Amino acid sequence: MNITIQDIIQYLTAHVELPENTVDRLITGSSDQTVTGVFVTFMPTQHVIEHAVQRGANLIIAHESPFYNHHSHTDWLANDPVYETKKSLIDEAGISIYRCHDIIHRFQPDGITEGLIQALGWSSYVEQQLAEADILSFPEGRTAQAIAHHVKSSLGIDYVRVAGNAEIVCRRAAVLVGFRGNGHVTIPLIQNEQLDLIIAGEGFEWETPEYIRDAVQQGKSKALIMMGHAESEASGMKLLADRLAERFPELSVRFIGEKPVYTVI
Amino acid sequence: MNITIQDIIQYLTAHVELPENTVDRLITGSSDQTVTGVFVTFMPTQHVIEHAVQRGANLIIAHESPFYNHHSHTDWLANDPVYETKKSLIDEAGISIYRCHDIIHRFQPDGITEGLIQALGWSSYVEQQLAEADILSFPEGRTAQAIAHHVKSSLGIDYVRVAGNAEIVCRRAAVLVGFRGNGHVTIPLIQNEQLDLIIAGEGFEWETPEYIRDAVQQGKSKALIMMGHAESEASGMKLLADRLAERFPELSVRFIGEKPVYTVI
Repeated sequence: MNITIQDIIQYLTAHVELPENTVDRLITGSSDQTVTGVFVTFMPTQHVIEHAVQRGANLIIAHESPFYNHHSHTDWLANDPVYETKKSLIDEAGISIYRCHDIIHRFQPDGITEGLIQALGWSSYVEQQLAEADILSFPEGRTAQAIAHHVKSSLGIDYVRVAGNAEIVCRRAAVLVGFRGNGHVTIPLIQNEQLDLIIAGEGFEWETPEYIRDAVQQGKSKALIMMGHAESEASGMKLLADRLAERFPELSVRFIGEKPVYTVI
Repeated sequence: MNITIQDIIQYLTAHVELPENTVDRLITGSSDQTVTGVFVTFMPTQHVIEHAVQRGANLIIAHESPFYNHHSHTDWLANDPVYETKKSLIDEAGISIYRCHDIIHRFQPDGITEGLIQALGWSSYVEQQLAEADILSFPEGRTAQAIAHHVKSSLGIDYVRVAGNAEIVCRRAAVLVGFRGNGHVTIPLIQNEQLDLIIAGEGFEWETPEYIRDAVQQGKSKALIMMGHAESEASGMKLLADRLAERFPELSVRFIGEKPVYTVI
């Protein structure tokens, strides 16, 4: 039996109510195509697309947009050579890119947070699963610095950015994936959940880290570990790939990672 | 003759037309106070305010908000202990904080960009001063990596984040301060100005660096140096302090820097 792209979309969206302004849709390709192979990824980069073409996979399920903006607008990119080269490759190879952003964040629990917590080996520390964050309790206490090293080694990343006091012993932390690292999310959480530590993906530099800096200057024990956006979300897409492979055993489904987009010099 | 805070505000705003929704205003204190000393800073942190109190300076001119959000809203911080401690110190010591964000970006040329270019020693390389960026030409060519090291040593910072190919020889670059590092600003610039290199403060991780990554994968010579938001803007506030000290020689005016809010682990 042939499996179409629409079959995969139906599986992904079956139990999810998407907001009206969702960014999730088939960004390229057409849903009536028969699936020849599935690549699941965080970012559908030029490299990931080339790799899919080489492997004969015609469906890429991606958390982020291929076109350098959250809403996948392309009018502003007309005549841009990087966009045109990427779009031509996608069109000529018949690659369908399905955006799975709002969907997976609406899984119960959030599929991206769940994948990260599993990758960090922290499932047994989860005390609460809120919509925007998992609240963790480390009963034995760990320094923020030790936690930073654990994050790096578990995720295979070269660096994290740390604000506040890395020496403090943390017993309560929140884990916030993607762009949930802004102050209006993290600061109320710190108070309401009596947190020592925020572990987040990305957020404005003038919000959470500056709050943490002020807290430490006031003598409070607080720290922040900023992992990187992709670093915080790729594990969730890997978990999705595992689930798709289990649900569609007749399909070739693979997760494709990317190197970190930044290196530190 | 006593100089009031209003006199300083009048000097700063004399030749600037501010937008209706400007964030620039006296955030704390009152404008009829006599100035006892001026601290100029990028971020009015707890530490900077304590320092001003110790030195008897009652006016802080700051590029960013003291309250962890661009619009200096405080309703959401009611009962937050970090906010309350900071606000009590400000009120008890009678510190006036004047936000100078939109003003200095509307100087001709942009006062923040000008300060950074001076700090980098690159004034002679400036080819165009656009509203959002300075366009630089390095006729002799320099690798992105060498430029990254120059940025670090000139600004005294420990790291920058680099995307793309750090080995490429760059002849044309744009310098974008603060949060101008997003794709809708940088990507059209790269094409219109035929740039090899973007040097920016801060921007979304899924925009400019991913575009640069794709460009390199397509065989194009592109690189990005992300300096950090404060790192890109503090020099402009330092330049403003120099100008204020020259205009008001009877006042004690000093620039106060902060350590980088993040360290890399």
